[in-house]
This record gives sequence, C-alpha cells and structure tokens, in this order.
Amino acid sequence: MVNAYDGNAADILEPRERAMVEERARLLGPAYRLFYKRPVHFVRGEGVWLFDTDGNRYLDAYNNVASVGHCHPHVVDAICTQSQTLNTHTRYLGQPILDYAARILKTFPPELSHVMFTCTGSEANDLALRIARAFTGKQGVIVTENAYHGVTESIAAASPSLGPDIAGRKRIKTVPLPGEGQKAGAQFADDVRKAAAGFEEEGVGLAALLVDPIFSSDGLRPDPAGFLRPAIDEVHEAGGVFIADEVQSGFGRTGSHFWGFERHGIVPDLVTMGKPMGNGHPVAAVVAAPAVVAPFGKSVRYFNTFGGNAVSCAAANAVLDVIEREQLTANAVAVGAYLAQRLHRALTGHPAIGAIRTVGLFAAIDIVEAETGKKPAPQGADRIVNAMCDKRILISATGREGHTLKIRPPLIFETGHVDILVEALCDIIGTPTHDIRAGENPTDEV
Amino acid sequence: MVNAYDGNAADILEPRERAMVEERARLLGPAYRLFYKRPVHFVRGEGVWLFDTDGNRYLDAYNNVASVGHCHPHVVDAICTQSQTLNTHTRYLGQPILDYAARILKTFPPELSHVMFTCTGSEANDLALRIARAFTGKQGVIVTENAYHGVTESIAAASPSLGPDIAGRKRIKTVPLPGEGQKAGAQFADDVRKAAAGFEEEGVGLAALLVDPIFSSDGLRPDPAGFLRPAIDEVHEAGGVFIADEVQSGFGRTGSHFWGFERHGIVPDLVTMGKPMGNGHPVAAVVAAPAVVAPFGKSVRYFNTFGGNAVSCAAANAVLDVIEREQLTANAVAVGAYLAQRLHRALTGHPAIGAIRTVGLFAAIDIVEAETGKKPAPQGADRIVNAMCDKRILISATGREGHTLKIRPPLIFETGHVDILVEALCDIIGTPTHDIRAGENPTDEV
Repeated sequence: MVNAYDGNAADILEPRERAMVEERARLLGPAYRLFYKRPVHFVRGEGVWLFDTDGNRYLDAYNNVASVGHCHPHVVDAICTQSQTLNTHTRYLGQPILDYAARILKTFPPELSHVMFTCTGSEANDLALRIARAFTGKQGVIVTENAYHGVTESIAAASPSLGPDIAGRKRIKTVPLPGEGQKAGAQFADDVRKAAAGFEEEGVGLAALLVDPIFSSDGLRPDPAGFLRPAIDEVHEAGGVFIADEVQSGFGRTGSHFWGFERHGIVPDLVTMGKPMGNGHPVAAVVAAPAVVAPFGKSVRYFNTFGGNAVSCAAANAVLDVIEREQLTANAVAVGAYLAQRLHRALTGHPAIGAIRTVGLFAAIDIVEAETGKKPAPQGADRIVNAMCDKRILISATGREGHTLKIRPPLIFETGHVDILVEALCDIIGTPTHDIRAGENPTDEV
Repeated sequence: MVNAYDGNAADILEPRERAMVEERARLLGPAYRLFYKRPVHFVRGEGVWLFDTDGNRYLDAYNNVASVGHCHPHVVDAICTQSQTLNTHTRYLGQPILDYAARILKTFPPELSHVMFTCTGSEANDLALRIARAFTGKQGVIVTENAYHGVTESIAAASPSLGPDIAGRKRIKTVPLPGEGQKAGAQFADDVRKAAAGFEEEGVGLAALLVDPIFSSDGLRPDPAGFLRPAIDEVHEAGGVFIADEVQSGFGRTGSHFWGFERHGIVPDLVTMGKPMGNGHPVAAVVAAPAVVAPFGKSVRYFNTFGGNAVSCAAANAVLDVIEREQLTANAVAVGAYLAQRLHRALTGHPAIGAIRTVGLFAAIDIVEAETGKKPAPQGADRIVNAMCDKRILISATGREGHTLKIRPPLIFETGHVDILVEALCDIIGTPTHDIRAGENPTDEV
C-alpha cells in the first residue's frame, strides 16, 4: 500500500508508539495498515487540525471524511440531540429520513429521484452493482486500472488498487485512465466500448461502468470537463448503466459543482456517496433513476439496520446545513484556486514535478525522477509525504505507480492553511516558495 | 416479507401516516418495506418504550439493536463526548480501538484473538466469507434454509430468507433446520456432510458453514445445547471453517452465555457480531483465530473508513459498561425464565399454539391451524403481530413459513413488561392468563 507503515521499521518509533503498533498487530491482526513511516497518534480534532498526545497540532490536508472540519459543533450537536431522542430503523415511519431524502435529492437532476441508505461507501457501491445487475440482467462491470470502490467481496473485486490477490474478478474489466487533452473522451470511450464487447463475447454481458468522475484513486483526472460523455453513450449503447462513485468527488469537493459528475454535463443512472456525508458518522447512500431500481425493488427487498436511521439522517442533515451556511462550495472554489495557483507558481518546471492537477479543493502532484523528468518516482513521493508528516502536515500519495501526492483537505481549508502547506512542500522539494501569500499579495484569482 | 405493510391497503391509514407512506415510496423507491398493516411513526425512545407522535407509548418487545434500552444515557454520553473530541479512522494510532479490542476479545476463548471492525453485520459476514475463502481456497458456503445474514451481494446470496430472486447462489447450499431432540445433532451433521460433499463434487469446495447458533431467522432453535458440535466436526473434516453469526445471539441475549456459540461448547473459527454492539450506532466486527485470518491478511489489506473509528469504539465500549453494570446477562436469565414460564403456562395446550421455544430473552411461538394443531398458520401469526401492535406492543414474526412469533426485547426488559406482553397475547389468542404475575406470586424459578 502507498504510504503504509513498514512493520519491519519498528526500531525508529518511540517506545509508546512502538507498543501501540505491537498491540494493534496482536489485537487487530495482519490485515490492518497504518499511515506513515512513523505512525501518528491523535487524541483530539478541531477544524482542520488534529492533535497528538503531546498537544502538537497537525494540519489536516488529507481527510475528506471530516469534510466540514473535525468535530464540527453543529454536526456534533445534531448527533447528540438525535441520539438522546430516538435512534431506530426504517421499518417504522420517521420524519428524519424523509426530510433528508428530499433535501439530498434536490441536489440532483430530476431524473435521479430515489435514494437508498447504507452505512458505508462500500455498501453503497455494492448495492449499486446489485441494482445494475438486476436491471440489465448482465454481470460485467468496467472500472479504471487503479480504481478503489470499497471492500465487500463484490466491490473489492471492482477495486484494482487493492492489488492482484483479490478474488472474483471474472466479472470485472479494467480500462486505462483517460488520457489528457481533447482526445481523452474519444480514447476512453473506445476503451470502454472494447471492454463491453469483451464481456458480450464472453457471455458475461455489460452491467455497468463504475467510475469516480474525478478518478481520485487513479491520481486525479478531472479535465477536460465533459470527457466522460462519449463513454457513457457507449455504455448505454451496450445496454449497461453508468454509476458515478461520488465518495471522493461529492458534497462540494470540486467547488464548481456539488457532484463530480455535473462537471461532465452528464446524468448517471446511479450515484453512490459516502465518506463526507456524515462528517465521520457512518452514513452513505445510493441515488437512482426509478426505472433502474424498479426491477431490483420488485423482486428483492432492501433493509440496512443502521442505514438511514434517525441519527445518521440527523448527522447528514447537519453536514448539509454547514456546507450551505459556511458556503463551503464557494470556499472550495476560492481556496482551491489559490492552492492551484500557489502550487503551479512554486512547482511547475521543477525537475522532480511531472504534473500538477487540481479540481476544487483537491490537488494531485506527480513526483518523477529529476534526471528524466518523466519516470514516476514513488519513493520520492513517499519521502515527501513522510517529510510533510514530520512537519506536522497530513497528505498522502496515490495512483497506480504511487508517485502522485494526494492533497484533499477538509472543505473549510483557508488560504493561510494553503500557505503553510505549500511552503512546507517547497521546503522539502527544494524550491523557492514565490511570495504570493494571500494576506500579503491577494490577487483577483483568489 | 413477514409482517410487511401491504402497499395496497393504504386506505386504512390515517391521512398523516398515509402521506408519509406515499412520500417514502416517492423518495426511497420500491425496495423499502415497513412493518405492520398500519405502520407506526415513532418520534422518541426511552428504555423499553417507543413513543409515537401523539405521545402514545409502545412496549418494545422486538428490537435487539437498542439492546441496553433506547437512548441509554451512558451510551449517548459516550457518543457525544467522543464526537466532540475526535472521530477519525484506523490508519492513525488511537487508544479507543485498542481498549475496546482488548475488552471484547476477553469475552472469547483464547483461540479467538483477533478482531476486525466494520460498520454493519452485513459487512462483518461479508468479510468473514472473504477470510474463509482466502483460508480454504474454496468457495462453497452452507447456510440453513431460512437463514438471514445480510445484504451485500455476497451475503444476500447466503440469505435464503430474502427470497428466491437473489443472484449468485451457485456457491451456496442450504441445509434443513436441525430437528428437535437428541437426534438433532446427528441429523444436522449428516446434512452438512452431504452439502460439503456436494460442493466437493461440483469442484466448488467447502469454505464455510455459516450459522446463527440459535437459528433466529429459522424460527429459533436453541436446544438441545451442544447439538451443533457434530456438524462443526464435519466441517473441519471437509477442510472448511465454522462461522458463528452472533448478530442476533450475541451480547448476552441467551442469558446463560455472552455468545450463542458458547451454549454448544464449541469454538468457532470466525465470529461475527453487529446489531446490539453499539445500541444503534453503526458498529460491527469479525473475531477470528489468527491462523484463519493469516492468508487473507498476508495478501489483502482491509480498511473500513468508519469501522472501528473513535466514536464507534466509544459507543461499543459504553454498551459493555451497561451490560456489566446493570447485570443484563443475569437479567436475561431471570426475566427470560419468567417470560418462558408465563408463556408456557398460558399457551401450552392451546390448539393454535404449535410450540414455544425460548432461550434467554428470546421467545418464539409457532402459530398453527387450530383444527389440525400442526399446519403452520402464517396468517394467524400476522393477525396476532398486528393485534399486538394495536395494543401498542411491538413483536414480529419469522421462520420459513412465517408462522413463528418473534419476541426479542431489549435486555433491560423487566417482569412487569413480561406481564403486559403475555396478558396482551393471551387476550388476543383467547386464553386465560393464569395468575402468576411476578409481583403477586413470585416463584423461585423467576
């Protein structure tokens, strides 16, 4: 795994952390992974900050779960109040689920008018595939080469980033990440068409194309906006459905739009969402076109004990309150633009920087070998991620080669936080920071 | 579905509830189901009581999720305090997950020394099957005829109670519910052996036997304690593993033991848990023998964004506090015995009662046609369940024929609540209640 703690390097840890790492292995077993060469131990969170046991604060430029900020008081209040009042399931009538359902559906095109609740993005994607397979009567699912969609058996198979040892991949085909530039759409559509034809030949048939509309786990590929459209047309032509996995791209992350698919001017057949939906409370959902969910709903009932319970809906509702009240999509546009500008000014042209891609409050920086300026340098990326952690700034790495820095802060990130982040990056990478701090030299772009 | 609201009977609803039912269908789509002919609308919960919009209180004799009582203040406090402090994931070090892991593992035999966290029982069972398949290199899973284990694609296939239209059942074989009496163990083992042999012949191989140790969804079959042992031996003989699904039987439900499998004097290879674990907060887990999880952990990492996060562990920890402080397993023994005694005295011999089975605070009553005294009467059960709801007492029905009343109250149920429940049942079924109210005529048995 990219940015994983190496269990053989325990001797560099402080005794207390070393003991915790050993206790984890003993209690939780071998399948768990920690971040960083020196795993960090947090005891408190507030806004964009996480605090360790010594009271040191870390700038969180990675976690999109606490999207409206760690321990946001409005979300905490909603969870407490509802937990004190009622927390039961969806086989009784209740107002919270209806209020939230109506509210979240208003953020979608009118074609998408049903919402079903789960607890995790994995469950949402798993359910979306069940619905897609019931609708099409086919089994095949197309995903990108380094996609990550979750951890149920069905969805782990559709997550190549989990590695080659995942079972059950006969119903999955991967397509390369879309290229860059104006040909991206045609190339991606062509690859999708070929994969669909392959499924048809094998008698598997095409159920769905499942992608994150900004391709986060493939290293972020947001542009050119609109390039997904031809591929969706191919999928529909082949009788499949298009599922937009908005777990990373949704809830205003892209700034310009509430959902990542909107940037492409398309309407998915199914949309899944998760991580930021409850700011850490386990709630997730599938949004669907009624015709697509009809065959599933007719023959198969769905009940998720905790999914859509009163507390989950209260938490999710409070998150929408905060996004609206604090104008966090506008903030993602403004602070995202400032982040992009600072990264480009500071790093473009540096021999170890292959590319910088951004969308809203999400930035990806390819680290390459300085000698060639091209060859992916995952060890270089790993070094930067860990050096950033030593400076108490949290980022990670991603992409098939693991050489892409992943910067995906809470949506409340401010320009001052960008300054801290970029200056630390420049210090580590070894390049002047260019004096465009927001406070000192504001520009119209910001 | 047993005890489902019939969408064609909307005309018997009050206008307000009818509007809510219609809004649900419009917003949530066709896969959701409500309980009862007249669905109930709850706005508040406290202890064993749920309150509707008019302030009427309903005695909850069904929900095992709110196992320590609806909105238990200690659990609510733990959720609030931790939500205000920190709620992040397992890729940073954190004490709450280690404390809870150590505490829950102490309730297991020493062979079961790893715990992995998910958000739902479905995810826990899905993960357990992934682990079992990785360990055995085989695919086949044996479940009982009317088992329910969850709703991911993989686990829905292993849940015959969801109906015949579930996909992907090639890797699943069902065995009949164990018979009663001393031959139950031999018969069940024989059926399991045949199913395993069938998988072997088909080249699928046996991965696991997955059962709820008290067979809740099959209509409750706890006795004779120990009857599972020969089947487990057959599974091991065939190279498979035994998974105990403790979602319904765990956390003290059976009274005499903390886990359902303990009644049988067996040690499973994997144990899954869910519903009552966080008293409504979405938290679930898999407990495993290290050797069983080793092949999975070696080749496949596991990360569940919300699984085992700080708030989930705080909620789960508080539930254990309450179970210990309020001595709820002892309460399940005492009040369960009183419930069993009152049910047997009141109903045994009634022509419409086929059988009464109980274990701890869980009772199942088979409703049969009075004429024959044998033929399952699901409509009779449905009538009783709805009449109980009209009397503001919540129970449901279960079993392959849907003729078994399911009584599974929170573990804080008291003898006075049993009195209310049994007297209402007797009134509906039409039999004298026998005067053995706890307060009036306590016995040593109670």
